[in-house]
Amino acid sequence: MSGERAEGEGKSVTENASGRTGTDPGTDGGTADTIARDTVTDYWSTAVSRIRPGEILLRGYPVEQLIGQVTFAEQIWLLLRGDLPTPVQGRLLEAALVAAVDHGPQAPSIAAARMAATCGVGLNSAVATGTGLLGDVHGGAGQQCMEVLARITGGEDARAIVAEYRERRAYLPGFGHRFHPRDPRRDPLLALVAEAVDSGEVPGRALAAGLALEEALAEGRTRPVPMNIDGATAIIYAELGFPPELGRGLFVLSRSVGILAHAWEETETGTRIKGPLPRPLLAGYHGPAPRDVER
Amino acid sequence: MSGERAEGEGKSVTENASGRTGTDPGTDGGTADTIARDTVTDYWSTAVSRIRPGEILLRGYPVEQLIGQVTFAEQIWLLLRGDLPTPVQGRLLEAALVAAVDHGPQAPSIAAARMAATCGVGLNSAVATGTGLLGDVHGGAGQQCMEVLARITGGEDARAIVAEYRERRAYLPGFGHRFHPRDPRRDPLLALVAEAVDSGEVPGRALAAGLALEEALAEGRTRPVPMNIDGATAIIYAELGFPPELGRGLFVLSRSVGILAHAWEETETGTRIKGPLPRPLLAGYHGPAPRDVER
Amino acid sequence: MSGERAEGEGKSVTENASGRTGTDPGTDGGTADTIARDTVTDYWSTAVSRIRPGEILLRGYPVEQLIGQVTFAEQIWLLLRGDLPTPVQGRLLEAALVAAVDHGPQAPSIAAARMAATCGVGLNSAVATGTGLLGDVHGGAGQQCMEVLARITGGEDARAIVAEYRERRAYLPGFGHRFHPRDPRRDPLLALVAEAVDSGEVPGRALAAGLALEEALAEGRTRPVPMNIDGATAIIYAELGFPPELGRGLFVLSRSVGILAHAWEETETGTRIKGPLPRPLLAGYHGPAPRDVER
Amino acid sequence: MSGERAEGEGKSVTENASGRTGTDPGTDGGTADTIARDTVTDYWSTAVSRIRPGEILLRGYPVEQLIGQVTFAEQIWLLLRGDLPTPVQGRLLEAALVAAVDHGPQAPSIAAARMAATCGVGLNSAVATGTGLLGDVHGGAGQQCMEVLARITGGEDARAIVAEYRERRAYLPGFGHRFHPRDPRRDPLLALVAEAVDSGEVPGRALAAGLALEEALAEGRTRPVPMNIDGATAIIYAELGFPPELGRGLFVLSRSVGILAHAWEETETGTRIKGPLPRPLLAGYHGPAPRDVER
Repeated sequence: MSGERAEGEGKSVTENASGRTGTDPGTDGGTADTIARDTVTDYWSTAVSRIRPGEILLRGYPVEQLIGQVTFAEQIWLLLRGDLPTPVQGRLLEAALVAAVDHGPQAPSIAAARMAATCGVGLNSAVATGTGLLGDVHGGAGQQCMEVLARITGGEDARAIVAEYRERRAYLPGFGHRFHPRDPRRDPLLALVAEAVDSGEVPGRALAAGLALEEALAEGRTRPVPMNIDGATAIIYAELGFPPELGRGLFVLSRSVGILAHAWEETETGTRIKGPLPRPLLAGYHGPAPRDVER
Repeated sequence: MSGERAEGEGKSVTENASGRTGTDPGTDGGTADTIARDTVTDYWSTAVSRIRPGEILLRGYPVEQLIGQVTFAEQIWLLLRGDLPTPVQGRLLEAALVAAVDHGPQAPSIAAARMAATCGVGLNSAVATGTGLLGDVHGGAGQQCMEVLARITGGEDARAIVAEYRERRAYLPGFGHRFHPRDPRRDPLLALVAEAVDSGEVPGRALAAGLALEEALAEGRTRPVPMNIDGATAIIYAELGFPPELGRGLFVLSRSVGILAHAWEETETGTRIKGPLPRPLLAGYHGPAPRDVER
Repeated sequence: MSGERAEGEGKSVTENASGRTGTDPGTDGGTADTIARDTVTDYWSTAVSRIRPGEILLRGYPVEQLIGQVTFAEQIWLLLRGDLPTPVQGRLLEAALVAAVDHGPQAPSIAAARMAATCGVGLNSAVATGTGLLGDVHGGAGQQCMEVLARITGGEDARAIVAEYRERRAYLPGFGHRFHPRDPRRDPLLALVAEAVDSGEVPGRALAAGLALEEALAEGRTRPVPMNIDGATAIIYAELGFPPELGRGLFVLSRSVGILAHAWEETETGTRIKGPLPRPLLAGYHGPAPRDVER
Repeated sequence: MSGERAEGEGKSVTENASGRTGTDPGTDGGTADTIARDTVTDYWSTAVSRIRPGEILLRGYPVEQLIGQVTFAEQIWLLLRGDLPTPVQGRLLEAALVAAVDHGPQAPSIAAARMAATCGVGLNSAVATGTGLLGDVHGGAGQQCMEVLARITGGEDARAIVAEYRERRAYLPGFGHRFHPRDPRRDPLLALVAEAVDSGEVPGRALAAGLALEEALAEGRTRPVPMNIDGATAIIYAELGFPPELGRGLFVLSRSVGILAHAWEETETGTRIKGPLPRPLLAGYHGPAPRDVER
C-alpha cells in the first residue's frame, strides 16, 4: 500500500518526537546506559568547517590562510560551494552582491528593520527582522527567475513560457519593475556577464535564456518589459552554477547590508518606538461602531 | 494580451517602490505640497481596533468592558473573528489551545527558543525564534488538514483522497504520529466536538469528514493510523468556522506558551550560549581534508 | 586571582565551542567510542513536560486530563509556574492577558507584522516579526515596572524612587501615556486586584506600591500621571508572584493575539509587499547630491 | 521639576500611539483634510539611498557606477559610513569579514539556523533565525571589546581595567577562548593591522590598546589569555573608525555567511523537523511525577 511508508515515516509533522526502535529502552530506565559517541556527533556533522582546539578549517582551508588572501565575496563562494572561485567568478559574484544592497525605506524589509532598531533590540535583531521579510513574495523573485531560466536551458522555449505566464495572468519573475521604466542595474550587470561569456569564463546559456525571455516579452508591445535586478542577478547566479534556492540566499546576504545601514541610521536618530505614521497621524478605522459587551 | 496587466502590476517583486502616477511630482519638487490626510491614514486602516485618546475599542467593544468579562480564549476569538463566541464555541477553542501548548525539547521550535534564551536576547526574541520555526513543515499540518477537511465537506470522497495521498506516497496531514501509537490528545478533543455536535452547537461536518478519513486510512491495515493533534484541532477549528490559515495562527498562539515556558526554564539555569551538544562533544566533520590556499 | 576563573570560564563569547576536559579524546580519534546516554539526554532535560510514546505529561499532569478542564490562561500559568492556579489567580491572569492584546497599527510591532504578512511568509513568521520587536523599549516597560515595584515591596520609599527618576530625567516605567490622558485599562484592572486583595486571595503589596508611586508622581502637579497598561499589569503579575522577566513574557503572549489579528487582516486584503508609505509617496532623501565614482 | 518632561515625553513605552498636538483634529473628523506631504515623506527620510524612477543613488553614487567598480566589502563600507574607503581600509575590513564567517554547528546561531531550514521556512527565515541569536552574549563581545578599547584610547589604563574585571569576576570581552588555547585568527588579523599602522594608513591606537590589555592579562600567569576573534576584529573596526554598535553589525554580516552555508547544507539533506537530538534519544525529565488534575 503506497501511502504506508509515507504515513509511517512522515507522521510527526508539528512535532519532532524522537521515535524509538523496538527494544530501545529510551530514557525510561532500561539497560542501554551508553550510546555510540558517533550517534550524536554525526547527527551534527558538517562539511563546512572543522573546529578543533587551535584549528579552524573552512572547507578544508585553514582560516589563517584565507584571511588577507581572499575577498569577502570569495569567502562567501567558498562556504557555499566548497571551493574557491576563479577570479572572474569572484568578480561576477561581487558585482551581483554589490548591486542588490538597497532599494530604500519603501521596502517593508527596510522599514521593519528601521522600526525594530527603535524598539530596544540589538542591531542583530533588526537585521533578523529585515531578512525575515524577504519571503517568497518580497525576496523570492530571483530564485523563481532562476527556475524559469533553468527550464529554458533545459530545452523549453522562451516564447512558450511567456505565453504560459500571460495565460494565467501572472508576472514573469525577474522582468519589469513597477517603479523603474528600466532598472539601472540591468545594463552593467549584463555587460559583465557578456564579457565573461566572451572570454569563455561562463557558459552563457543563462544569459541567452534571459535575453530570449526579454525579447519574447517585448514582442507586440510598444513599451518593453526589461529585466530587473532579480532577473539580472538570476542570470549571474545561474551562470555561476548556483542552485535557485541560493539565489534567494545570496540576495539575503546582499540586502542585509542595506538593512543594517538603515537600521543603524535609525538608531542614530534616537527615535523610540517608531511606527509607520508620524505622530500627528492616526491609523484609520473601518470596524464596528462602539457597542457594549452584553453577557 | 493577458499577461500585460500582470506584468504591469506585479512588477516590483523584491522591492516596494512606490509607483508614481502620471503627473505626480513625487518628492522631486513639483507643486503638490499637500496630500489628503486620508491617503495615509486609510492606508493603515483597520477593523480590529480604534484607538483614540482615552479610548480603546476592540472590534467595537470598549476594552474596559472586556476586562474581567471575557476569557483570554474568547478575546482571541473576538480579535480574529470580529464578534464574541458563544460559550460552547469559546470552550471548544479553549480546549484546542490548551491541547497543543508543548511537545518537549525535541521539537526544533522549542530547542531553538531555549538556545536563544542563553544568547543575551530578551524573552520576546526567544519566543520569536521559536514561532519563526513553525513553518509549513513544522507548524503547517493543522492548516493542511483543514484544507483536506474542506475538500470533503465540499463534496469529495474521503477514500479517494486517501488513495490520492497513497498514490503520491505523501502522508495525510493530521493523521498518524511518529512517536505516539495513539495521540493522547485525540480522544478528549473529539469527545468535546461530539458533545457540541449533539447539542447542535456546531454543524459536525468537519468531524464526520475527519472520522471518514481515519476510517479510510485504517482499511486493510492491522495497525490503524489515528488522528493526531493536528487533525483533532483542525476539526475543532473547522467546526468553529476558522479559515485554514488561522489554523496555523492558532497553533502558533498555543505553542508560544510552551516555547515561553521552555525559554524561561533555560534562562533560569544561567547557561550561556547553549549549543545542541553538551560540552564534551564536538560536531562531526565530513568535508575536505586540510589543504593549503594556493593563489 | 579573581579574574582568572572568569577568564577561564567565560571565554567563549561569540562561539560555543565545546571545551574538552583533560583526557577527553574529542572527535579526533581517541578511544572513547561510547558516551553515557545521560550526558546527552540530561543536557536537554526539562521539568516542563515528559513525552513518552502515548504519554504527554505537562508539569506532571496528563494532557488528556487538562483538555476541557482548564482554561487557556490556567494552562499558561501551569506551564510557567509548575502548578495550577486558584480560580481567582486564574481570573486575574486572564484579565491581564485580555487587557493588553492590541493597541493598533501605530505600534511598530503591529505594523511590522502587517507588512510581513504581505511578503510571502507564513502567519507564524508574521507573528515572529511582531513579537521580535517587543524589546526593552517597546515591550519591556511592564518588566521594568515590576522591578520598581519589587524595590518598594522590598522596603524602599516610593517618593524617593520618583525623585530618583526625576533626577535623571527618566520616565517611570508603567506610568503616564503619551496618548491616553488616562489609560482606560487602568481602572478595571486595579478594581479586580483590589477585589482579590479584599478577599485575601493576593497579598496586596504590589498594589499598594503602585498606588504609592502614582500618588508620589501626582504630588505638586496639576495633571496627574496615572498608571498605564504596563503599570496595571505589572501589579497583577507581581501580586501573582511572577518574576519580572515573565512580565515581559506574558505581555508577549497577550500582544501576539493582536499581532496575529492584524497580520491576518492584512493577509486578507491581498496586498503584496506593503511598505510604510502608500504608493504615491516616496521616502525623503537628505544624503549627498549625485556624484561620480572616481577610482 | 526635572522628571516632568521625561514623564511627559517618554510615556508610551509599549505603545506608539501617535500623540496629537493641541488643536489637531486627528482622524475623528475635524477640518484638516490635507497634510503637508513632507510630514510623511520626511518621517521616512534617509541619507542612505535616493530612489527615483530610473535612478538608484547609494550615498550619492549611481548604483550603475558602483557595480563592477567596488568590492562587496567596499560597498558595505560605503553604505555604513557614507563614503568609499581607501584601498587599505577596504582590505582591512575585508579581512575582518572573512575571518568571522563560521565556527561550526556547536554555536546556537548555526544550530538554530540548521534546524529552521528543516521546518519548511525559506532560507531567508533560516538566516533570520541565526542572526537573531547573535545577542549581547552570543554576538556582543566584539562590540563590548570596542567599548573597552575606547576607554583606553580615551586615556584609561589597561592594567586598571584588567584589575577591574578581575575584581568583579567578569571576563574581559575579546580575550581568551574556551576552546582555542590561541585563536588561529588572531595573528593574521593583527599582522594586517600592524602593516597598516606601519604604512600610516590607520592610527594604531586601538592596536596598542589591545596589546596592552593582552599584556596586562598575561602578567603573573603561566598561561596567557590571548586575544580572540572578537578582540582582533574589534581592533580592526576601531582602527577603521566604526562605532562599537557597528562592530556587532559587521559581525552579523560576516557570520550570516556561515549561517547561510549551514542552513543550505541542512536543506540539501532533506531532513524534516530536525531537533537537537538524533532519533533514538529523548530529552530527560526532572519535573513532578505523574499526578491527576483535581478540580
